[in-house]
Parts: sequence; structure tokens; C-alpha cells
Amino acid sequence: MSALRDLTPLLKPRSVAVVGATRDPNRIGGRAFHYLRRFGFPGPVYAVNPRHGEIDGERCHARVQDLPEPPDMAVIAVPAAAALDAVRDCQRAGARALTMYTSGFRETGAAGAALEAELAALAGSRGTLVCGPNCQGVANLLDGMNANFSSALAEPGLRAGPVGFVSQSGLFTGILPAEFRRRGLGLGYLVSTGNEAVVDFADVLAFMARDERVRVVAGYLEGVRDGRKLAAAARAAREHGKPVVLLKVGRTAESAAAAASHTGALAGAWEVYRAALRQWGIIEVDTIAELFDVIEAFAVCEGTARGDRIGVLTNSGGLGVFGADRIRARSMRLAELGAETTAALRERLFEFASAANPVDFTLQGLTDAAAVGSHLAHIARDGNVDATLAFFGVQKRNVDALIDEIDAANRINDKPLIVAWMHGDPAAPPRLRERGVPCVDDPAAAVDAARALVSWGAAAARPARPRPPLPLPRAAALTARARGALSEWRSRAIVAAAGIPVARGALVGDAAAAVAAADSLGYPVVLKIDSPDIAHKTEIGGVAAGLADAAAVRAAFDALVRAARERAPAARVDGCGVYEMAPEGVELIAGIKRDPAFGPVALVGMGGVFAETFGDVALGLPPLSADDARAMVESLRGYPLLAGARGRPKADVAAVVEALLALSDLALACPEIAELDINPLRAGPGGAMALDALVRLEDPAPPAAGARRSAP
Amino acid sequence: MSALRDLTPLLKPRSVAVVGATRDPNRIGGRAFHYLRRFGFPGPVYAVNPRHGEIDGERCHARVQDLPEPPDMAVIAVPAAAALDAVRDCQRAGARALTMYTSGFRETGAAGAALEAELAALAGSRGTLVCGPNCQGVANLLDGMNANFSSALAEPGLRAGPVGFVSQSGLFTGILPAEFRRRGLGLGYLVSTGNEAVVDFADVLAFMARDERVRVVAGYLEGVRDGRKLAAAARAAREHGKPVVLLKVGRTAESAAAAASHTGALAGAWEVYRAALRQWGIIEVDTIAELFDVIEAFAVCEGTARGDRIGVLTNSGGLGVFGADRIRARSMRLAELGAETTAALRERLFEFASAANPVDFTLQGLTDAAAVGSHLAHIARDGNVDATLAFFGVQKRNVDALIDEIDAANRINDKPLIVAWMHGDPAAPPRLRERGVPCVDDPAAAVDAARALVSWGAAAARPARPRPPLPLPRAAALTARARGALSEWRSRAIVAAAGIPVARGALVGDAAAAVAAADSLGYPVVLKIDSPDIAHKTEIGGVAAGLADAAAVRAAFDALVRAARERAPAARVDGCGVYEMAPEGVELIAGIKRDPAFGPVALVGMGGVFAETFGDVALGLPPLSADDARAMVESLRGYPLLAGARGRPKADVAAVVEALLALSDLALACPEIAELDINPLRAGPGGAMALDALVRLEDPAPPAAGARRSAP
Repeated sequence: MSALRDLTPLLKPRSVAVVGATRDPNRIGGRAFHYLRRFGFPGPVYAVNPRHGEIDGERCHARVQDLPEPPDMAVIAVPAAAALDAVRDCQRAGARALTMYTSGFRETGAAGAALEAELAALAGSRGTLVCGPNCQGVANLLDGMNANFSSALAEPGLRAGPVGFVSQSGLFTGILPAEFRRRGLGLGYLVSTGNEAVVDFADVLAFMARDERVRVVAGYLEGVRDGRKLAAAARAAREHGKPVVLLKVGRTAESAAAAASHTGALAGAWEVYRAALRQWGIIEVDTIAELFDVIEAFAVCEGTARGDRIGVLTNSGGLGVFGADRIRARSMRLAELGAETTAALRERLFEFASAANPVDFTLQGLTDAAAVGSHLAHIARDGNVDATLAFFGVQKRNVDALIDEIDAANRINDKPLIVAWMHGDPAAPPRLRERGVPCVDDPAAAVDAARALVSWGAAAARPARPRPPLPLPRAAALTARARGALSEWRSRAIVAAAGIPVARGALVGDAAAAVAAADSLGYPVVLKIDSPDIAHKTEIGGVAAGLADAAAVRAAFDALVRAARERAPAARVDGCGVYEMAPEGVELIAGIKRDPAFGPVALVGMGGVFAETFGDVALGLPPLSADDARAMVESLRGYPLLAGARGRPKADVAAVVEALLALSDLALACPEIAELDINPLRAGPGGAMALDALVRLEDPAPPAAGARRSAP
Repeated sequence: MSALRDLTPLLKPRSVAVVGATRDPNRIGGRAFHYLRRFGFPGPVYAVNPRHGEIDGERCHARVQDLPEPPDMAVIAVPAAAALDAVRDCQRAGARALTMYTSGFRETGAAGAALEAELAALAGSRGTLVCGPNCQGVANLLDGMNANFSSALAEPGLRAGPVGFVSQSGLFTGILPAEFRRRGLGLGYLVSTGNEAVVDFADVLAFMARDERVRVVAGYLEGVRDGRKLAAAARAAREHGKPVVLLKVGRTAESAAAAASHTGALAGAWEVYRAALRQWGIIEVDTIAELFDVIEAFAVCEGTARGDRIGVLTNSGGLGVFGADRIRARSMRLAELGAETTAALRERLFEFASAANPVDFTLQGLTDAAAVGSHLAHIARDGNVDATLAFFGVQKRNVDALIDEIDAANRINDKPLIVAWMHGDPAAPPRLRERGVPCVDDPAAAVDAARALVSWGAAAARPARPRPPLPLPRAAALTARARGALSEWRSRAIVAAAGIPVARGALVGDAAAAVAAADSLGYPVVLKIDSPDIAHKTEIGGVAAGLADAAAVRAAFDALVRAARERAPAARVDGCGVYEMAPEGVELIAGIKRDPAFGPVALVGMGGVFAETFGDVALGLPPLSADDARAMVESLRGYPLLAGARGRPKADVAAVVEALLALSDLALACPEIAELDINPLRAGPGGAMALDALVRLEDPAPPAAGARRSAP
């Protein structure tokens, strides 16, 4: 993993040069110069262009080397053909960071990719930070620095504020400012990372999260090349107490291909992203609208959700019912109000209105704002409520008084309060937001925003750092000098060395040794042909189970060896494994696979034919904490079978968790393991045991090696 | 089932009386009189109120009997205490329909419910149509009739148009007009059904669907008392070629309770609603925003989606990737563009833009609308494309030309074209809609709207009428004079009489008869204790399988009878069933249950412990068509196991479908079957066979009897 970069020169520069500045403010080189000055950048802004003597009354320098001081950051707005020379000039002039608008690199094909590699090497040679190329630039409105050429961003009416946003698409430099203006939200950073030749999504995420003026960091993500670096950024955000909200696109093979075609971004499997984001406590959203609703919730709301029990107050029974459905659909609970709350509500509600959650105050808001405020206060004070949603349909009268009441209720404690304001007086939402109450357009959006707060509340309560992985010297020794697929016997040895119980057994070369081993193990036993070249032993008749005595073992040994010779004549056969029969239990699968972006991934799933069909598998990224591993197991749809559903014996879930932790350690200690399958991992009341294993090794590849180094 | 009512006097009255009309237009009795006149109701509108001589210069009558003619419809806006007298007066005066705003009925408790029962009886005695009580009224803007007291509806700027809407919540009389104004959509009907003492949701749905000026009917639904009547309304809409769009709330036990508390509506299980709506081709939506987006799609778009292959054109690669994800998430496919299309696109796209779907025209829209039009036309003409989505992010320039191009592309053929217009020039969306192009706020909404068009296209292509169910006199005879739980033997007889293969066997009373039966069946056999009082035979040791010879059968018979005597001493034992061992196959469950709203429901699911845990069950409402039954089976997550996944033998799916059709017939023929479980129904390559069955009977209840009558 490469380290997270300190982006201070890029995002908090003391001085900026615009290379390729023009007089025409409609050209991108003109925009940067204008916007930097118009947004009140406090340091010097230098125009550089040999074709102009001055721009807007300011001197324009012919070459960046001519500037009176080394610029901290330079914007490069020259064509691709001149871009590398401009980079060299900037480096000579002492610039530490570059924002490259220039396109014509990797996104255009092989020649562009070569040019981009040259750019990356050039930057690397001097440690120059480069944002882009092919990006729309960077903006840090908290420090008056706008070097983003988006005209949407430059329009008036956008406040500086506590939101950091990083995007792998230019799209958001257009729609985000418009949406923030509409909602009256303040923007801190807006960074378009373009091709990410040097500075990448994770660098920006972590840098923004470390700024104490920022309350939430968010982004549009197509893919990363280094998942471990994204993990480090997520960890940095957690350590600074900042929620991270991401819209991850490219979820299918087709859409990932579309993403690659337009930015050249490398995408790992979405299942792995999804698992990783969940594990790291990152809030994943599904739509652009939800992205903005959730950003608003974190930016505006100062409260904390300590649980998932939601109180609902509404002026429409219909909205209440709808909200109750949505709360369940988003895996939260409708709070059961305490008896005191219900009694207090009933005192001021209309006679026939419902005092149960969702609480329906019907038309009371038109005439009696104080009653609405009282209802809100009682709900907020109820110990069974973790967050409150208030739904107002078509509220056009009595708005000032209602806002005051909502404001007062929001100050009672630090539980979140979110308002859905549907087709009411349009003046209300911005006023509520100013007072620390998120105010969205409809009840579904309010529930989705609450889900994010609840999810973050739970994530923030978990320890941020996973336990350090254990060194596994013995497992590493077992994989040394090997490559390719290993036989079951060798695979089991690796699994056992990692600390996962395996069925006892022996590898034997002839029938007599098989019988001796069986005698020592105790009958019945199972015999399996052992070969690195026979992955599906059953299919060639390479397994004999339930062998009850020596004669059966002897006969089976001969039959297995004969079957292998006849049906897999090219296979190298190491002999036969003789194994004890394992105790009963639920069959799971567990293992390690490798993702191009994230490196090693641990997995656990239900075994057997149903589970293959149902795809009931959970993923996790090493290093796993015990909480992570337990969450993986509990997320399986088949988990009730482990937990003793329908009168079955309870399996030893702790042992399954231990096995996952062992796999996590093993994956980090032995990056040469390309794939490891335990199938089945049998989990019974007395523990979990690997009954079969298959390991495939490959030469240590760079990302895998990186993963190893990252282990503390 | 009660029949669908002809609502002409209610929704297309020739004359209207307002009983309780007032001079104050802020009171509901005042509003009705004002709105009817202001909306240009073409017939006479009579004010009735003994306390006024005139209202707004019009004569006000003391009693409804004093009117110069019998009014077709009367609005009743008097307090509950006076309401029934008002109803009687209106009946005497010859009114055929009433719209009752009056509240204070079922929604207020037991006394109100009694008053409502009296109202219903009164209405029934003269066949008077009653909308409400406790409703916000009815509006038919196509005929200038607004008898809805919603002030939101009465605000200016709402056009008459092709959408019919019926709501079980007053909410929509507020937000729907606001949303329709915002989008520039035309509204035909807006009906709030209130307590549904007489006229119900299904009546209104069917009536609106039959109006040829209406293109789409939609509604907000909390629950119905008579699911079969809702089915009839859905069928009426299908026969008139009208899509139906519903937001069904009350999906959980808690939210259904909330719905019941505020309207007193009766809610069946949501799983049953969901299955029913799907089976009937009704479009179910999940949020209020989606409801309006889908209404817009049907109201504006004249095209038809004949498949699910979606072409996407976008000015933002990011939106394209996002859209591709959403298309898959909504179970549609990204179209694979033909080679000719790709070549034609490439000719006019910027050099490095993607000509693959999603097609990214980048900044071309700013300068070259004709190119965008050309791209759209090529996509629309592609034989691999069933519908096109065009995403425009922040399009503020060149808008007139783009609208012309979009319009022209939309006229090429009848494939749907939907635009997502995100933070662009706000003038564009209404103009596009005027030209027959739905235009929503973001790509997710566009995909959701397309999903509805695709879903309706598929539903409309299926035959509207299911096959008529078969009479099953023999099954009916078997259930006659019985009640409660039946033994396996009797249950099997009913299943067999319905036409579902069962394992061969005999019911025997002693060991000798058991051996004789086994000799005749052939060994091995299975013996099972037969008793209506022992549902879980295995648990008391009442099953012996794999009996290979006469001695084993004799011993098993004695053991089973002894086990029953010892472990279920109170059970009536009819003897033992002796059955052949069934061929191998996939274990399913199948059966019939009864829903309070819908009556009989057929079900099929995966059998075994995994499926119980995974809840992999599909429901369908008799009478099922073969398509319905096949769709149920194919919707199971475990369906691949039947279809021969992972090298397994293919099961005879057609036989499973036949079994479901038999259950459908049985459920309608024998409403006294409260519950029927076939567990397992074993499906192998050679057919499907019931290996065990359990029937529970009850006295025929009214809804079940109704269901029987509804069978054509």
C-alpha cells in the first residue's frame, strides 16, 4: 500500500500560479485565474502565459520560472502536448503541487496512457503532488481557494461550510453546487480527481477528514487501484470522528466496464467494496438524491443516534404508515413509546388522534404549534426513542411558530431530529437547517437520512482499529518454494498451521500404512486420494467414506489409487489421506480470495447445494476484528441454522469466528496464497473443523506484497 | 365478492346539491359550493342550508326536498349527529349518490362504527352510492366537477388531464395537486374514499379505468376488505388497457396497525398484496416520489416498451455508470447496441467518447444539438433497444435546440424515451412533457419510470383472463361434513382428487393388512401413523421408512401404534398408512392458505430446513393461469435447483405448474379448506408427487363463499 499523501500544498496552498491563464473567462485557463481572485484567495495568484502581458490589470508572466517566488501550487491549463514541459517548468520553479486540467492522457488510449506514465514518473522523481490530469480541479472554500473550473461552482450564493466532497466524475462539480445552493448547505472542499496519476481518491478523503472545520466527507467513487489505501483513509476519518458517505458506482460487470471506458479507473468486485465499506463504517448510499440527503443530515444535525428506535410525529396518518414501512425496510425499528409519553401525548392530542407511534397530530399544526412542540418534546425525551422524524404534509400556515417549536424540541437533548417537509411553505427548510434540523423533501428521504445517522452511530461506537494480525511463521514456511494448486494434505497443513482445527489424519503411500493409520485414528475413517492435480476428488471416485474396518480400508486404498490412475492418468498422486470421521454439524464454506483492488478477502458462507444456489456468502477484509468476523457470520441468511433454529443444536459460533480470524491472519502473512477454500467447515456444538481444504499459490504480486507490508 | 359499482351518479353527476353549504369559503361546506361553481361544473349546483337564504347571490334552499329537481349527487357537510337525517332527506329527494365529508364514524370507535353500520344499511336499502364518510371528497376535472374540499386542489394552475387517482389518505388531496402543478401534469379524477362505508377503492379504480379520457389510474392503498373485488377492478383496468400504479402501505404488522388506527381499514398480509399486484400486472411503487415519476411516465409517454433492454445516452459518464447500475438493480438489461448503431454513433461522437451503451456524448450538447439528436435517433432505431433514457446533467445552454432534437427522436417510433434533467434549465421539463417525453429529476427516477413501462409492457402482453377453474366435485365431496384437521390419509385423498399425484398406498388397521398392502405395493415401503390429531408424526415416532420386507412391516406397524398410544394417548388413530417409497427429486412445499382480505392463496416454496430459514416461498391468487403458476415457480431463489443447476437432473417443472393449477382449482371449489400443506412435494425428472399432506377445514366463511361465486 502506498501511504496517504499530505495534500497541504495542493488544497491549502499559500500561493498559486495559473499556467495557461487567458483573458477569456470562458476558457478553463481564464476561469481558474478569475475564480481564484473572485473567491478571495488570500495569497498571491500568478498568471503565466507567454502570449499575454497582463490579464485583468494584473501582470502575466511568460514563464513560471519568472515568478517572484516559488508557487505552492500551479494550475496547468495547457494542451497535452505542452503539459509535461509545463510540469518540468513548475518543478524547476519550486511548485510542490499541480492541478492538471489537461486532458489527452490515459482516457484516450495507449499513447495517452504512456504519456500519463511519464507524468507520474516525473512527479515521483520530485515528490510533486499532481491532481489529475483530466480533472476539473480543486476547491477549498473554507480558505477561499477555488481552482476548479466549474462555472456551476462559481455562481453566487454558495456558502463555505463543513462538507468535504471528492468525485471521480466531473458530474458533481456541476450538480453539487446547485444542490447545495438549493438546500442552503455550506461546502468546504470540492475536488475532482480525474485520472489520479498521482493524488487519488483516498488521499483527498483522508486530507479532508483531518480538517477540523469539516464535519462530513463524502464522495462519488467509481473504483480505486489500492483498496488498502482506501482503508487507511477510512481509518483516518474514523480516528477524526468524521462520517464518510460514498456513492459507489460500477456495481455490475457492464457498468464497471463503462466506468473504465470513461475514466480508465480500475474496479474491484462490488461485493468486495460493499463488504469493505460496511466493515469500515462508511455509509453507502444508492442514489444521488440519497447522497445529498445524507450529507445534509451529517452537515446539519449535531445529534447522535445511539440506537435504531425511531419515533415519528406526523400531520398525516398516511405519511405515518408510509414512514413506518420505510423504517422497517431500512432495518430500523419503530420505537415503542413509554406509557408516560403516551399519556402525555394523549393530553394534548385531538380526541381521536393516535398517540401510538407514529403519532398523528392531524390538523393541530394549523392552529396550535405549541401542541406540536409538546408532542415533539415528549417523544424526544422518551428513553425508548433514539431519533425522531417529523413529517409535515402541505404545511403552509403557522410556519414561524412551528419552526420555533421544532427548534426548541431539537435543543432538548442530542438525539437527532429530522423533518420531512412535503410541499409546504418553501421558506421553512433553509430556516430549519440553519437551526440544526435537517429538512428533506419527503418521508422516505427522512428515513434514509436517519438510517445513515443510526448506522454511523453504531460504527462510531465500535473500536476503530482492528486487532493486529498475528505473525504466522509456520504457515509461511509451508507455502515457501511452492506454487500453483496444492494437494488436500498440504492445504490442510497450511490451514492447521493457521490455527484452524482440521480432522486428524495421515498421508499414506500404501494400503498397509493406510490400515495402520486407521487403526491409530479409530474406525470409521475416510480415505481420499491426495494429489495437487485432482481438485474434484469425488468426481473421479477418489473418496471412500465410512470405512469401518481394516479390510475396508485396504480395499478402498487400492480402489482409489486405481481410480486415479484410470480417470486422472496425468495427475501426480502423493498417496491417500486417511482421516477421522468428523462430528455432525452445519456445513459452512470459508476461505480466502484475492481482489484486484483490495488484495486478500476472507469469506464465509453456508455450505451445500442450497447455499451455492442462494449465494449466501459474507466477505470481510483482513485484518478482521472479532466484531468484524462475528458480523460476517451473523449476516448470513442461514445464520439461524447456526444459532439453533427449529430445535437444532446450537453451533459453536465463536469457533467459526476464530476460524475467520485465523484466515485473516493467514491472508496477511502469506500473500502468496491466491485462493484458499475450506469446504466444508463443519460447525457443531463442540467447535468448527475443516474437513477439506484447497490452497492455490501464486508468485507474490505487488498488491499482495503491499498488503503484507501494511500489517502493523 | 360484491360487484363493482357504476359510479356515474357520483363522479359524473348532472346536478349536485351541497347539504350544509355555508357562506364562509374556509369551511368545508362553503368550499364545496364555491369550488363546484369555480371549476365550471356544467350542471346546476344547489346550496342547501336552512340558515341561509342565499349564498354568493344564489338561492339557498332550506331542505334538499325543496330543490326544483332531484339532485344526482349530494355533498353532505353536516355534523355526524345530523348526517343520517341528511342522508334520508337526500334519498327522499331522489339523490342517487352522496359524498360525505362528515367525520365521527368508524374512525372514532365503537359508537361511530355503529353509526356507520346504520349508514351503510340505509344506503343499501335504496342502492345509494356513498363516498366516505370521513373523506375529503371527489373531483372529476375532466367534467369540471370539483366536490373535494382540498384547498390545494382548488389553487389555480392545475390542468384537466389523463390521470385518475384514488386515495385512502387525505394526504394526496394535498400533495398530488402541488406535485402535478410542479410537473405540469393534467389530472382527471381525484377521489378520497375515507371510511368506505359503501363505495370503495376498487369501485373508484375500475370506474376511472373505464373512462376513455384516462390513460393511467393510480392510488394510495392502505388495505381492502375484499381482495377479489380489487382483482375485478384490476381486470377491468387491464381490459381497458389502462396501467394501474399503486403505493401500498401497511407492509408490516406495526404499520398495518397504524393504518387501522387512523382509518379503520382492514389489511391483509402484505406478502399477499405484493403477490396479487404482481399477478394482476399492477405496478407497485415504493415511495411517493416514485409514484409520481411513474404516473408521469404513463401520463406523458405514448410509447410501449416491448422488452427490458434499455439504451442510455448521457452527457456525463458518471451518470451513465450510475444508470447502468440502476438498470440492473431494477431487473432490466443494458441494451447491447448493434454494430451499425455503434458505427453510426462513432461518426458523430467526439473522438474519445464511448459509443458503447451507456453512450457518453460529453460536452457535445453545448454546441451541437443535432449530434445529440442523431445519437438518440440511432439508439431508438436499434433493434436491440426497447426503451431509451437520456440523462442531462446541468444542461443550461442550447436548450431550445436540444428540446427540438429530443422531440424529433421521440417521434421516430413508439419506443419510450424518458429524459432525466438534472439541475439544468428549469424551463425544459414542462416543455418536454408537452411533447410526450417524460422528464424527471434524476437518472434513478428515469430508470424507475422505465421499469414501470417495461413491467406494464410485459403485463399487457399476457392474457388478461386466467383460465376458468375446473369444477372438482370429487374433492368437494371429500370435504363435505368434515371439519377441523384431517388425517394424512384423508388429506391425501383430497389432494389426489384435485389431480395432484400422490404416492400409492393403503390405509390399514392391523399388521396383517399392512403386510398385504406392502406386498402389493412392492418393497421397500414407508409406514406412517394416521390420525387427524397427530400433525407431527415423526416427533412421536410415528413414521418408519425403508421397510424392506414383511417382517419389518409387521414390526413397524406394532411399534407405530404403540408409540401413538404412549406419546399421543388422546389422539384418534385411524390406523397406519402404507406407502411406496417415492423417486428422488427436489423437495418443495405447496399448499393453500387463506388471507382475511383475499381469501384463498396458493403457495409454493423450497422445502427442507434451508428453505424454511431462507423463507423462499411464492404466493399466487386463484384462479391462477399457467403463466401465473410458472412465474411463481420461477421466482423462487431455489429455482436453479429445479432447472438443473450444477449438473443435477432437471426436475419436471411443468408437473409442478400443474400441481399449482390443481391447488388453484381446489381452493376455489372448496372454500371450506382453511389450510392445505403438501410437505414435501417432491419434484423429479419424471414428475411431481405429494409425499405428505395436511388439510384443515373450517365452516365456509363469507369471503371464501364469495370467492367461490366469483369463479366464472
